Order: sequence, then structure tokens, then C-alpha cells
Amino acid sequence: MPETVACVGAGVIGGGWVAHFLAQGFRVHAWDPAPDAEAKLKRLVDAAWPALTSLGLNNGASRDNLVVAPTLAEAVADAVFVQESAPEDLPLKQKLLSEIDAATPPGIVIASSTSGYGMTEMQADAATPERLVVGHPFNPPYLIPLVEVVGGARTEAWAVEHAADFYRRVGKTVITMDREVPGFIANRLQEALWREALHMVANGEATVEQIDTAITDGPGLRWPVQGPMLTFHLAGGEGGMAHMLDHFGPSLKSPWTRLEAPELTTELRDAVVEGCEDEAGERTIADLIAERDRAIIAIQRAVEEARDG
Amino acid sequence: MPETVACVGAGVIGGGWVAHFLAQGFRVHAWDPAPDAEAKLKRLVDAAWPALTSLGLNNGASRDNLVVAPTLAEAVADAVFVQESAPEDLPLKQKLLSEIDAATPPGIVIASSTSGYGMTEMQADAATPERLVVGHPFNPPYLIPLVEVVGGARTEAWAVEHAADFYRRVGKTVITMDREVPGFIANRLQEALWREALHMVANGEATVEQIDTAITDGPGLRWPVQGPMLTFHLAGGEGGMAHMLDHFGPSLKSPWTRLEAPELTTELRDAVVEGCEDEAGERTIADLIAERDRAIIAIQRAVEEARDG
Repeated sequence: MPETVACVGAGVIGGGWVAHFLAQGFRVHAWDPAPDAEAKLKRLVDAAWPALTSLGLNNGASRDNLVVAPTLAEAVADAVFVQESAPEDLPLKQKLLSEIDAATPPGIVIASSTSGYGMTEMQADAATPERLVVGHPFNPPYLIPLVEVVGGARTEAWAVEHAADFYRRVGKTVITMDREVPGFIANRLQEALWREALHMVANGEATVEQIDTAITDGPGLRWPVQGPMLTFHLAGGEGGMAHMLDHFGPSLKSPWTRLEAPELTTELRDAVVEGCEDEAGERTIADLIAERDRAIIAIQRAVEEARDG
Repeated sequence: MPETVACVGAGVIGGGWVAHFLAQGFRVHAWDPAPDAEAKLKRLVDAAWPALTSLGLNNGASRDNLVVAPTLAEAVADAVFVQESAPEDLPLKQKLLSEIDAATPPGIVIASSTSGYGMTEMQADAATPERLVVGHPFNPPYLIPLVEVVGGARTEAWAVEHAADFYRRVGKTVITMDREVPGFIANRLQEALWREALHMVANGEATVEQIDTAITDGPGLRWPVQGPMLTFHLAGGEGGMAHMLDHFGPSLKSPWTRLEAPELTTELRDAVVEGCEDEAGERTIADLIAERDRAIIAIQRAVEEARDG
């Protein structure tokens, strides 16, 4: 008999979690107050299943392990882990998390998929807030590995560790944050790009399609390989990030975005340079270039094939 | 006898252009004032060649078609197209572009790889500014398809069209801009993310490696497939971008980034929704989800294989 994960809220994100946990071989008890939630959820799981099958299902993984529970209490009763994915509405999440907390057996960790609220504010009404954490996934949660884990002021360290361990066990890449930053890390980076894009559309400087093409055929091809920092480590040529910052640093002052740039202090410059060198580890610039080039070619082929079906 | 392209400046970007034009089967006449330029350039071309070979070289493509010219005049004398990739230094580019303009036969288009200056300011000292355009590539220019093309106040339309046609002919994805926007489109989007990342490092909110992991294992896996706009079109579930904006619009007001968000007016909301629908074309949300999922899996495999060598 597989373990049970409870998924509260079955929209795009909650439903994506359901698909992921089913593919990992868990029983999933889902609950969502919407009248058409069950039909939508099953459509979403069915749509995800071919991808999950091609990725490889765990032993015992089956869509038959999905139970849509009639009540929240029944959904969480037997859960080893609870994932809340309700709409982004703070009072709603505060109320729902306190209800989940009241209904969930003691010692079971409850994670919220919130894309930006801090757990400190969300756990305000909970009776046992020490087991409430943020476990922020990316759409689709059944494919994108990243989960950002962070607790609130009243969360205990064991709950954060337990959530991080659980997510790693189900195949996720976990970033554990030691403090609450609005938008966490990835959403904040993504949000900066998104806001700039909205400004450009608002001002007629670029169309929606130009913005997407600029990313899909431009820098977007580099980001899955080495991220924005290592990418620029290679923009500096044989001099790496140090040369890049010393050469392009001044352009931080040019009015390229509506986001004001930080002062490029020696401390910041050195932190970025050393961070890149640590991340590169044994890999030389030449190694990184070869790796990047192999990946970009394969990524372009992968995208073309996916588009052709 | 293949046609000749002149590449002025042979650093990371100029050298990348050299490799691209060689792989396309052109003769390349390169010029760079640095004493060690030729050795560096040949190392760069040699490093790129395996990737270019695996992509497929054009007929007659050979590294033997590279000639490092002793003078600027000799480099541009027989060129059908001139690509300038000097350091980002406005007075330097103004002076160099006027020298290139003086040395290049009439009617030949001269493009600058500048990552952010407007051609209006760069063409200030040129005798025949009408043929000067920006042709902004992305590193590495021999792999990333995108080139942003835009003229200056004194550039004539035929030169912009000629540059766009030439880049398309050599396999590039061209975005032609009808106005000078600092940072063009892709750099401006990339720069917003980069600035936010620098702020996070400066404030100790994330390490360089966390920032890269947040992108490589998170949103970065989606961007080569559908770009930031279509990606969010899918974040709205069956309701698409309209639901996404109506649901997450308020979070634009939350302090997620140091970039102030635009007012989400009805006009902006409708422009983004309609832009996504136009871009999706015949593809339903389900089609786009299936395409995205196939691509993300293939991209992850591509990146893993590239990392393993």
C-alpha cells in the first residue's frame, strides 16, 4: 500500500503536483472546493501522463491512485505530506492553512505552493505553525525540478529540513532559503524580466511575439545550461566574469531597463567573480564553452522536434 | 571563390562572428589591433569548430578561409558585408565606424555588434552614415540565432533591409526594430534579470550558484520553448493569459523586485492577451502544453548529456 500525499487545491499548480506524486508512485488524496474540480483535475493528469510515462514512472505509479476526497479532513487524514496550492489570496491562504493544520495529524509537514507570500504572514492563524513551510514549485510541477523551501518566523528547523528531504526524495532540486525574501529567488528573477516585458508592451517598444522570440532564439537558449551568472562568466572570454564586470560594469549605469542597477562595489564585484569560480569548480572556461555549445545545439534540436510533435 | 565578410574586432563576439561566417562558407577578413589577436582568434575558432561541424558546415566551409588582415583597409576592401565588434566604448566606436566607413566601398552595409548604443550616436562622425546599422548578436554568435537589427536617425531603410536579409541568409533569426530602444529587446529583458540578480548577491539574499540553479532547474527550462509570454499563457490553465493576468495581476503590486511594475491597464492587459492568442495561432492550450512538456524533457536530457560530455 503506497504512502499518501494530500494535495489541497487542484488548479494548474495543485493538479501538477497531483500528477507528479502519482508518477512517483504515491496515493494522492486531492481536495478542491470547486464544483468542476474533479473533471478538470483528471483532464490535467491525463494531459501530463504521456510526458511522465516517457520520463519513466516509479514502481506502482498509476492514475488509479488518485482519490478526490469529499472533504478537506478526509484528504489529509492519512497523509505523510500535505501540499497546499490554493489561489494567491492571503486571507484565503491564512484561513485554509489553519484549517489544514487543524485537520492534519501532528508532526506531518504542510507545505504551501505560494508563489510569493511569506510563511510568517500565512501561518498567522495556525495552531501548530511550527510544521508549516513554503514549498514553491514551478509550472509544470511534474516536470520543472526546482522547489524553493523556506519557513516562517514560527516554523521550526526540522520542518524545513523534512520538506527539503521529502522533495529531494521525489526527484526535486531544492533551494532552501535561510530568510523570507518576497518572491523567493527564481520568481523574483523571472518577475524582473516579466515586468520589463510588460513595460515594453505598454510602451509599444516590442510586441508579445518579439519578446518571446528575443528569448527563445536568444538568451533563453543559454539559461537552461549555465544560468545567468555562468553565462556571463563566459561573456568575458578567457578573462571570465572578472573581465566581464570590469568591461561591461559601466553599462550598468546605462538606461537599459526600468530597474535601477546596484552600485557595482568592489565587494559585489568580488562576490560575483568568486561565486562563478566556485561554481565552475574544476571546469576551465574552455570546458564550460564546450559544454554550453553541446547543450545549445541539443536544446535547439529538442525544441524543434517538440514543435514538430 | 567565396564571398568575403569583414570582421573588425576579434574578441569573444567578433571571433564568434568569424567562426559563424567561416562555417557558412564565406571568406573572412578579420582585423583587430591587439598584438595577440590572431592567436586568440584562432583558438576561439578552433574551440567553436567541433560544434559548427556537428551542426553541419556549408559547402566549402573551411578555417583556411580566414585571413587576418594587417590593416583595416585591407580587411574591408573586398567585403560584401562588414561586422564591427569592438569593445563597448562610444568614442572608440564612433571613431572606428567612421574609419570603417571611409575604407569600405560604397553601398556595402556596415553593422555594429554593439550591445546597447544607438546607431544615431555611433554614426555621428561617419561620412556615409546611411549604410550603418546595428546588428546585435548574442554570445556565442555562431550558435545563438538571434540578431537585433535597427538603424539610426541617418540610416536609410534599404540598409536595414539589406542587413536583415543578409543575416537571414546566413541562418539567423532577425528582429528588426522600428526605433532605437537602449538595450534593444533581448538585452533589456536579460539586463533586468541580471540587475535583480546583482541586487540579490549584493544583499546576501542569494548566492551566485543559487541564482544559476534557480534558473537552470526552474524557469530557464521553459524559456527556450515558448518565451516568457507564452509560458505565462500556460500558467493561466485553460483560461490562458487572460486568467493569468486577472488572477496574478495584483501581485505586480507586491514588492517582488526592485523593478517597479507598470500599471496593468485594460489596454496593456488586452494587448498581452491578444498577443499571446496571435502567437499561439492554431495551437490550443493543450497543444502548447504537450509541446512544452516534450521540449522540457528533451532539454533536460540535452543539458545532462552536454554536462557529461
